[in-house]
Amino acid sequence: MRILILGGDGYLGWPTVMHFAARRHEVLAVDNYLRRTIAQQTRSEALMANPNLNTRAELFAAASGHDIQVEIGDCADFRFLEDIVARFSPEAIIHYAEQPSAPYSMMGFAEAQRTLNNNLNATFNVIWAVLTRAPQCHIVKLGTMGEYGTPNIDIEEGWIQIEHKGRKDKFLYPRQAGSLYHTTKVLDTDLLWFYVRTYGIRVTDLMQGPVYGLSTEGADLDDRLLPNFHYDDIFGTLVNRFLVQAVAGIPLTVYGKGGQVRGYLNLKDTLQCVTLAVEKPAASGELRILNQFTELFSVNQLAERVQHVGSQMGFDAQVRAIENPRKEKEEHYYNPVHQGLLELGLQPHYMTDEVLAKMLAQVARYKDRIDSAKIMPRVRWAVPAKAASASGAKD
Amino acid sequence: MRILILGGDGYLGWPTVMHFAARRHEVLAVDNYLRRTIAQQTRSEALMANPNLNTRAELFAAASGHDIQVEIGDCADFRFLEDIVARFSPEAIIHYAEQPSAPYSMMGFAEAQRTLNNNLNATFNVIWAVLTRAPQCHIVKLGTMGEYGTPNIDIEEGWIQIEHKGRKDKFLYPRQAGSLYHTTKVLDTDLLWFYVRTYGIRVTDLMQGPVYGLSTEGADLDDRLLPNFHYDDIFGTLVNRFLVQAVAGIPLTVYGKGGQVRGYLNLKDTLQCVTLAVEKPAASGELRILNQFTELFSVNQLAERVQHVGSQMGFDAQVRAIENPRKEKEEHYYNPVHQGLLELGLQPHYMTDEVLAKMLAQVARYKDRIDSAKIMPRVRWAVPAKAASASGAKD
Repeated sequence: MRILILGGDGYLGWPTVMHFAARRHEVLAVDNYLRRTIAQQTRSEALMANPNLNTRAELFAAASGHDIQVEIGDCADFRFLEDIVARFSPEAIIHYAEQPSAPYSMMGFAEAQRTLNNNLNATFNVIWAVLTRAPQCHIVKLGTMGEYGTPNIDIEEGWIQIEHKGRKDKFLYPRQAGSLYHTTKVLDTDLLWFYVRTYGIRVTDLMQGPVYGLSTEGADLDDRLLPNFHYDDIFGTLVNRFLVQAVAGIPLTVYGKGGQVRGYLNLKDTLQCVTLAVEKPAASGELRILNQFTELFSVNQLAERVQHVGSQMGFDAQVRAIENPRKEKEEHYYNPVHQGLLELGLQPHYMTDEVLAKMLAQVARYKDRIDSAKIMPRVRWAVPAKAASASGAKD
Repeated sequence: MRILILGGDGYLGWPTVMHFAARRHEVLAVDNYLRRTIAQQTRSEALMANPNLNTRAELFAAASGHDIQVEIGDCADFRFLEDIVARFSPEAIIHYAEQPSAPYSMMGFAEAQRTLNNNLNATFNVIWAVLTRAPQCHIVKLGTMGEYGTPNIDIEEGWIQIEHKGRKDKFLYPRQAGSLYHTTKVLDTDLLWFYVRTYGIRVTDLMQGPVYGLSTEGADLDDRLLPNFHYDDIFGTLVNRFLVQAVAGIPLTVYGKGGQVRGYLNLKDTLQCVTLAVEKPAASGELRILNQFTELFSVNQLAERVQHVGSQMGFDAQVRAIENPRKEKEEHYYNPVHQGLLELGLQPHYMTDEVLAKMLAQVARYKDRIDSAKIMPRVRWAVPAKAASASGAKD
């Protein structure tokens, strides 16, 4: 199949690009390096140096014999994207091309505006490039479990049947997200659903939880093919921060009470899920929504797991609660369904002690590159610190 | 009170501006004439000539003695809006500044993109101008009943309590709209709710049905103060189209089966509702949602009403069903709650025969200006006609 991967330079994008190329699909990877730009601007560089996308494609071709095409450009620019779609004529588009940092989206006006316009216009342009240039193409869009928030009822897979005053109907499951970034994904879902039901395009929307892991078949070929590993407060994930803190001998920082539960998955399972979605596509006029995670953990449970495995490897990690910079429930009900991908054939890789140990060992090899100044939260979900300087922002 | 009215040149905006000025509030009206521009571009000019906003403000001051301040500029430009809010320091902002045509938003890529970016950025900028320059200011936002669509369960006022698998929670009422324009209002609601619950701003979101009427205390002073009256397929409403068709002796065009039911209200009641919302504001951290209409009618009922009153006045109007250019249910359940505004004190003006007769008489005075080429639908909700030319669009 001809597969267009938007955001192909990202933490998920690059492993996805290698994975589909290794499966002998024809792959075109697109990125404008927005994440790298923001990482530089906010001093949030990744732990390992990642060569640029063209270089990585060359390294991967040399190591594996599989070609990857690369285009550098902005998916929020319609003419650029439409031209790519017209020329490449993809059968599937995997759309990761969004600004993915919740804290960045909460820094101030300029960052919020950039997140809103980049993410909405990228999704809007994907829809229209498909409508105008490849109407049968299947859009596989990365959503987030964060769209649902933490409601007091069970979270279904995208849709809910509501009984109200003796009558029934089916609706998108209600969404209320915890950051502007997550809210842009809610808006994406609204847009996709409108165009699916109006024009009959085919879409799979993957509501993914936080991903951990560095190892994939492609990345294991050469350290220069590793996905970017962020441990900073802007792009870093909870698991990455804990791993780095354990290795660096810094206390593991739990935000608030640590009862925040989320659905996690291994990077290898992201690749499986996206592959299942692409190779078993949604029908025309279908918005197929799948909850993409394999295990639930609270923040406290993850801290204990990393502390436990770290101590066996000689890392003496303490756990320290700090004031929560975010606005979120620190103790809550959380019971999300995740059946759809299992039914499509997902074989989960769980977060075993061995998996944690392997990640700790990998981080430890880069211990001298850890910059502890990047770790603590620099963005608060209070009234935005940079509000007063908003007028200096571009519009 | 200092009241900033965004979109002050519009069908609702201009009567609202006069109304608040007459109530001795300090009023600043802002508009960038986007509707006038689109009307020219799509050959959808209003029936009566409406002087520009500055001229109307001068005419109104001369006729009533009440001053209106005017600024011409684009609310989707943050620096412009932030500067206005900083200088005027409003206690309430009435936000009508959106591209309001459903058919326009369905014409093709460029029109859809313009609608999305104009509407989302205007709302986003209003939120941020308030956050940065007037955090106590009450935002009164015009939403639409069209956000809810036509679900098979009763429509509540903005919120719904869901019981699911033995547990309960309260959510935004599910929304699924029938055009991209209406979908942008859904996105607005998502954005407003995110910023209300995160930063504690105060917002009233008015889910308004289609409005009819030309007569208000201000407009009755001078024909040059009339609100703009559109009967074209882009900006025109169903009621206006029927009135013009009756006067011009053209059959009243019913789209499809004509069983589409909506909640209507008189322009005088829009003024009452907005006044009630402004003078009895939402609390900090509250997103107050009110369903704003007074009566339900189907398309067929309205056609019969206009035909009946028209015939008494000597207008021989036929009714003719035509293929529906839109994608919508032509027969459906519809039972929306509308209690909130009545509880705040709304005294409805119903659509009596007398009201219809007065509108018909007013239209008849401009009969020679009716351009029948503007009336029939030029935009279809099929795969967009202008899709193929999308690459010529600006991004």
